[in-house]
Amino acid sequence: MSAVAVRAMFRSHPEKPPHAEIISRCIDSCFSCVETCTACADACLSEREIEHLVACVRLNLDCAAVCNATGNIMSRANKAGHRQLLEALLANCIAFCRACASECARHAERHQHCQVCADACTACAEACNEMLNTMRMPA
Amino acid sequence: MSAVAVRAMFRSHPEKPPHAEIISRCIDSCFSCVETCTACADACLSEREIEHLVACVRLNLDCAAVCNATGNIMSRANKAGHRQLLEALLANCIAFCRACASECARHAERHQHCQVCADACTACAEACNEMLNTMRMPA
Amino acid sequence: MSAVAVRAMFRSHPEKPPHAEIISRCIDSCFSCVETCTACADACLSEREIEHLVACVRLNLDCAAVCNATGNIMSRANKAGHRQLLEALLANCIAFCRACASECARHAERHQHCQVCADACTACAEACNEMLNTMRMPA
Amino acid sequence: MSAVAVRAMFRSHPEKPPHAEIISRCIDSCFSCVETCTACADACLSEREIEHLVACVRLNLDCAAVCNATGNIMSRANKAGHRQLLEALLANCIAFCRACASECARHAERHQHCQVCADACTACAEACNEMLNTMRMPA
Repeated sequence: MSAVAVRAMFRSHPEKPPHAEIISRCIDSCFSCVETCTACADACLSEREIEHLVACVRLNLDCAAVCNATGNIMSRANKAGHRQLLEALLANCIAFCRACASECARHAERHQHCQVCADACTACAEACNEMLNTMRMPA
Repeated sequence: MSAVAVRAMFRSHPEKPPHAEIISRCIDSCFSCVETCTACADACLSEREIEHLVACVRLNLDCAAVCNATGNIMSRANKAGHRQLLEALLANCIAFCRACASECARHAERHQHCQVCADACTACAEACNEMLNTMRMPA
Repeated sequence: MSAVAVRAMFRSHPEKPPHAEIISRCIDSCFSCVETCTACADACLSEREIEHLVACVRLNLDCAAVCNATGNIMSRANKAGHRQLLEALLANCIAFCRACASECARHAERHQHCQVCADACTACAEACNEMLNTMRMPA
Repeated sequence: MSAVAVRAMFRSHPEKPPHAEIISRCIDSCFSCVETCTACADACLSEREIEHLVACVRLNLDCAAVCNATGNIMSRANKAGHRQLLEALLANCIAFCRACASECARHAERHQHCQVCADACTACAEACNEMLNTMRMPA
């Protein structure tokens, strides 16, 4: 549902931002990753062998923080003159998502929630990368 | 997609939280409302008669902040002993969503983004209310 | 330093919000509590008997989320007509701060970071309560 | 007060993070910048010539989002193996703070709140830069 809403927002934004579909997917993937990472951190806290999952909890919380900021900032249009800021933001978000996906993947066989989280992080990295490539294309 | 991911997280959480479907819908509606309110605030900033939309921008940002906190906190299971905290949190989130929906509705005829945002706020208030009613039911 | 900056902001805000000193202290205590709760959650994750601190980690993260929203919303002036929303927000923040202070206090003898965090939560609850009492005073 | 609390947290963290003083200043400057940027965005919304301040409002909100994520992530210790992530995060935060400081500086003569905010952004960029330089030093 949220994907539908965010697309409708961009279609009705007075600035008529280009690439509305790709921006919408980027924002939606970021907030989906916030949800999944926050929930994975909590699920890890309930596991018995929690001491093996502390690094995963920390990366989950880090990734949620970066994705929250990225989704928030990408929701604001009209960044003319700030392309470099956004490119660095997206690159940073991709790096955190990949690091978190990689840590989660280490526990994915034993913990289904880590598998779900690894998938959400990978999907977010891909959506941010698509956004980044689109921004870098000659207009 | 995010709705699917958050449901899968709750199904694989070691605490086996009851009402996983209702919690998932509540969390997902909160983050959807964060997205929509953030985007509506920005769309308002691009409108010509911005001075009529300042109250809307402020309520959008307030509502996004409360929904972000609510979605984050509801993602953590095992709140035994803290039912009162959660009930007050949900009641507060519902109140902000309704206030923002009501302000957005005033501008909905002229600005489609305000209509989309009013709908997302109303949906979030309903999902939080369903969660609240479920928590208050005798176990 | 942040306390000084936020006071200077309110003194230069065109709305001339009343009670600038009390609002500033409330906002600053909220963000101080965000910092302390976030750091306490992380310190708990590094303790040996982490399984006794899981409830503390969760309340730390909950309290940080609520204080972040409260500090953010209190930073926006001109809430005429929304006094009830703010009162419920502050009351909710106070309740989370007290619950977190109480949980941290249980571990304060063994873990100095829990003592520091309990103090920050108590200070935030007091600053929010002072704000709440000020709002309820007849103008 | 918050600066004192965050220092006390790092002194009592079981990991004994090196450079506790510099980390504390970095975190505290980030949250101070969140407060100031959030308040500056709101003060701009109350100015008469708001249409000249829309870019400032947007950068204020962007900068607050990035500083919130950076302060949050820097509060988690034990990032062995993730130095590159943190360096990119800090570099990104510095870039947003400088962009926001520069935009605020354009309005600083007319609006005292923009001057206060430009100073907070500059201080945050400096504290993050000091952190970055410290991380890059040979151990």
